[in-house]
Amino acid sequence: MKVLFSHKTGNKYFYDENSNQDYHCKEGMIKRDDILNNVIVKSNKGVLFTVLTGNNFDRSIKIIRGPQIITNKDLGYIISRTRINKFSNILEAGGGSGAATIFFANLVNSVKTFEIVPKHFEIIKKNLKKNEIENVELILGDLNEYIEKENDNHYDLIFLDLPNPTKILEKNLNCLKKGQYIVIYQPSITQIKEIVDFIVKNKREDFFVEEISEISVRNWKITEKIARPEFKKEIDHTAFLIFIRKV
Amino acid sequence: MKVLFSHKTGNKYFYDENSNQDYHCKEGMIKRDDILNNVIVKSNKGVLFTVLTGNNFDRSIKIIRGPQIITNKDLGYIISRTRINKFSNILEAGGGSGAATIFFANLVNSVKTFEIVPKHFEIIKKNLKKNEIENVELILGDLNEYIEKENDNHYDLIFLDLPNPTKILEKNLNCLKKGQYIVIYQPSITQIKEIVDFIVKNKREDFFVEEISEISVRNWKITEKIARPEFKKEIDHTAFLIFIRKV
Amino acid sequence: MKVLFSHKTGNKYFYDENSNQDYHCKEGMIKRDDILNNVIVKSNKGVLFTVLTGNNFDRSIKIIRGPQIITNKDLGYIISRTRINKFSNILEAGGGSGAATIFFANLVNSVKTFEIVPKHFEIIKKNLKKNEIENVELILGDLNEYIEKENDNHYDLIFLDLPNPTKILEKNLNCLKKGQYIVIYQPSITQIKEIVDFIVKNKREDFFVEEISEISVRNWKITEKIARPEFKKEIDHTAFLIFIRKV
Amino acid sequence: MKVLFSHKTGNKYFYDENSNQDYHCKEGMIKRDDILNNVIVKSNKGVLFTVLTGNNFDRSIKIIRGPQIITNKDLGYIISRTRINKFSNILEAGGGSGAATIFFANLVNSVKTFEIVPKHFEIIKKNLKKNEIENVELILGDLNEYIEKENDNHYDLIFLDLPNPTKILEKNLNCLKKGQYIVIYQPSITQIKEIVDFIVKNKREDFFVEEISEISVRNWKITEKIARPEFKKEIDHTAFLIFIRKV
Repeated sequence: MKVLFSHKTGNKYFYDENSNQDYHCKEGMIKRDDILNNVIVKSNKGVLFTVLTGNNFDRSIKIIRGPQIITNKDLGYIISRTRINKFSNILEAGGGSGAATIFFANLVNSVKTFEIVPKHFEIIKKNLKKNEIENVELILGDLNEYIEKENDNHYDLIFLDLPNPTKILEKNLNCLKKGQYIVIYQPSITQIKEIVDFIVKNKREDFFVEEISEISVRNWKITEKIARPEFKKEIDHTAFLIFIRKV
Repeated sequence: MKVLFSHKTGNKYFYDENSNQDYHCKEGMIKRDDILNNVIVKSNKGVLFTVLTGNNFDRSIKIIRGPQIITNKDLGYIISRTRINKFSNILEAGGGSGAATIFFANLVNSVKTFEIVPKHFEIIKKNLKKNEIENVELILGDLNEYIEKENDNHYDLIFLDLPNPTKILEKNLNCLKKGQYIVIYQPSITQIKEIVDFIVKNKREDFFVEEISEISVRNWKITEKIARPEFKKEIDHTAFLIFIRKV
Repeated sequence: MKVLFSHKTGNKYFYDENSNQDYHCKEGMIKRDDILNNVIVKSNKGVLFTVLTGNNFDRSIKIIRGPQIITNKDLGYIISRTRINKFSNILEAGGGSGAATIFFANLVNSVKTFEIVPKHFEIIKKNLKKNEIENVELILGDLNEYIEKENDNHYDLIFLDLPNPTKILEKNLNCLKKGQYIVIYQPSITQIKEIVDFIVKNKREDFFVEEISEISVRNWKITEKIARPEFKKEIDHTAFLIFIRKV
Repeated sequence: MKVLFSHKTGNKYFYDENSNQDYHCKEGMIKRDDILNNVIVKSNKGVLFTVLTGNNFDRSIKIIRGPQIITNKDLGYIISRTRINKFSNILEAGGGSGAATIFFANLVNSVKTFEIVPKHFEIIKKNLKKNEIENVELILGDLNEYIEKENDNHYDLIFLDLPNPTKILEKNLNCLKKGQYIVIYQPSITQIKEIVDFIVKNKREDFFVEEISEISVRNWKITEKIARPEFKKEIDHTAFLIFIRKV
């Protein structure tokens, strides 16, 4: 895959080298030969492009979008804060569009993902195939009904991005190793508070609320003359993360 | 390893189960038997503790500190933004205290780390041993002198946390795969601007500045009555990250 | 003035009570009688509106826009950090659209504003008239040429929102009282650095760089069920502020 | 008043010119003559100081501290967002240490301040006197018991920094002009949510929740070589502000 980065608009276009065709977009036509042999190319509308070699980040942008995907700022922090690694097994629900699933799968030993909505299940399935992911077990169903059937001490992380996560906390979570985390992703701080309230109210000494965080990324624009935060770029709120440790 | 979390101060104390001894700290003495058999324990000074099973996050806190270590907020974003994975090979300089080295090593195939300061080199070596890391090649030396001897197309990421990173950019970087990133970590935005200026001035079409970012984490305190950002916790500036893609 | 707040879109519409006419907008027609006599009204398209009594904040939104206006987050901090008050005299350049001018004029004794662009000068003039501001002296011209003719010790604040602010710093600034501030507003941190560099390089002991700040506002959405930061609202970067104190 | 700014520690010391004495602090002794006649002075311990002419900002720092004071970032935004001006009358409770009271009093026509705690009342009284504020009516008492006795349409802003602000919202608020704001300052988002919930539950169409905000300030350090956000300085959470408009 090649990525065409427009100097005019900043847009990125993805070009499949196996296509045998010139590339057409709103900013003009670029010749296949140019794409394959040059770094800076010009479309027939006079727009300049840098030709980049495609990478995993590009592929992560190209996934088929269903439900809102989890951003890099949140995904990265889940990894670094829980310290899961290439030997880890992750249990995840709901799968959404599979963005987190693919990210995790590329880093860890195995991922088991539950998605309750058939339409989303199909999107995840396609995205996994497209990304050639083979260490994910994808289940169409409700984690609530399955979680107590999982093997004891198998998982290093339970990651929940679904409504009513306290239902899961009511279950027997023997499948999660002691000392490891349940991480829950929720857009509203009131949802996080409900989780904390549930744990306090039910005197759940087996759950230790270790951290509640929100992550921000601020992008900077730097040219010869200027250095300033970008206007209108990604510093937005997405969600809060709660890290609950199994005691 | 067990972690004793003080209800009074919020401090964490690490207890080695192999020690065969009671645990003594400023908040009193806690009996070995209590630690091994209970979730909530009380010291002889009346302080309550939750006994947690130790995990990788605890171990990441316990490393021997030399130079400033890179925070989780930054480490996580490097992984998620570059999309390196368990098959990746990383080239890193300088090693610092080994915090990034250990983090990366647990996630990827291999890490090669250069550290020029003998004292820091020794700290990293000890930290790697303590964390039982075996896929790191640690070199005492200056990456500038070695980088052109590395095998072509071997690395998926070059991570630089050192002064004068433009010296590395002047070298032949054949060892980095096309499309992959050089990520540079610098506390001051003027240092990042120097890198951008270097690339522009030298018309280095082989380097594409894809993103300049700073990451923040804000922790929240939630109890029965309140939900608010923590006072005095970690939202501080650490550094800027520049993601340069090899064209 | 009445303000019609649409429950459907969140838009605000301004209604002049002297108009003797029903109000027409994209969300339908609302009867004059309804606007004058009710709090909640319905348009003929079925959209509900709350009818608010207009205030100074509404008027600040309604000014004629020319150049980018300075936001409330920045304006407020200038006042609170410099502690100017109703007895203060402010010297300002460039005037822009007059947003800062009107804000200051409503708070302090007098404002003198220089604007070099005739088109902007006309916009400010109209905005001052529309807001019935009478304590502003508006000058079409370059502050650089006039500043040394101002009376000694007259001003409590010099506020600069213009290119090349160091030119002003080269002048005799006797018109500014000792201990008071020159506040400069610049979008890029490199522009702020140029100012600091100018002061250091020229060993200007009469200028004390007291603070460099950037201000953020984050809006929250709270309903019965949720409490979370707003998506896509105003946390954006505008500019950096440097507070230079006359020694 | 003179301000001695230490080049070594960044501390500020306040010197009263009427004292007729040399100045003594932890960083050494500085001669009265030096302070009065020079810009850069040296203590007998060899520490360099810049001598600044004192200003209102210094005086705002020097007030006697009782309860937590409201920061400049929040005070400024209250002014700019509500657009109160030198003709405005403000009703405030509780007074705290008088920091907001003094700030407002210097900007507007009049302030009436209620403080229920006798000890805090005394602190405010002293701070007002020290700052020579004469347009504040300070009442020792509970605003809840007095507010309905205030004259109709007198106030342009009601500012509340007290527990249980919904009690005030239950009262007849005829003393506040239509279209003007009640601004409430609360550290916890759950407290803000209680206010919103109160308004929704009681179907209070006379209150329009116009904005909920939190303000941040980030300070930058700029020297010849560096430009970066300050470590450990003031970006901390203080409180949330809710702007409720009287319909």
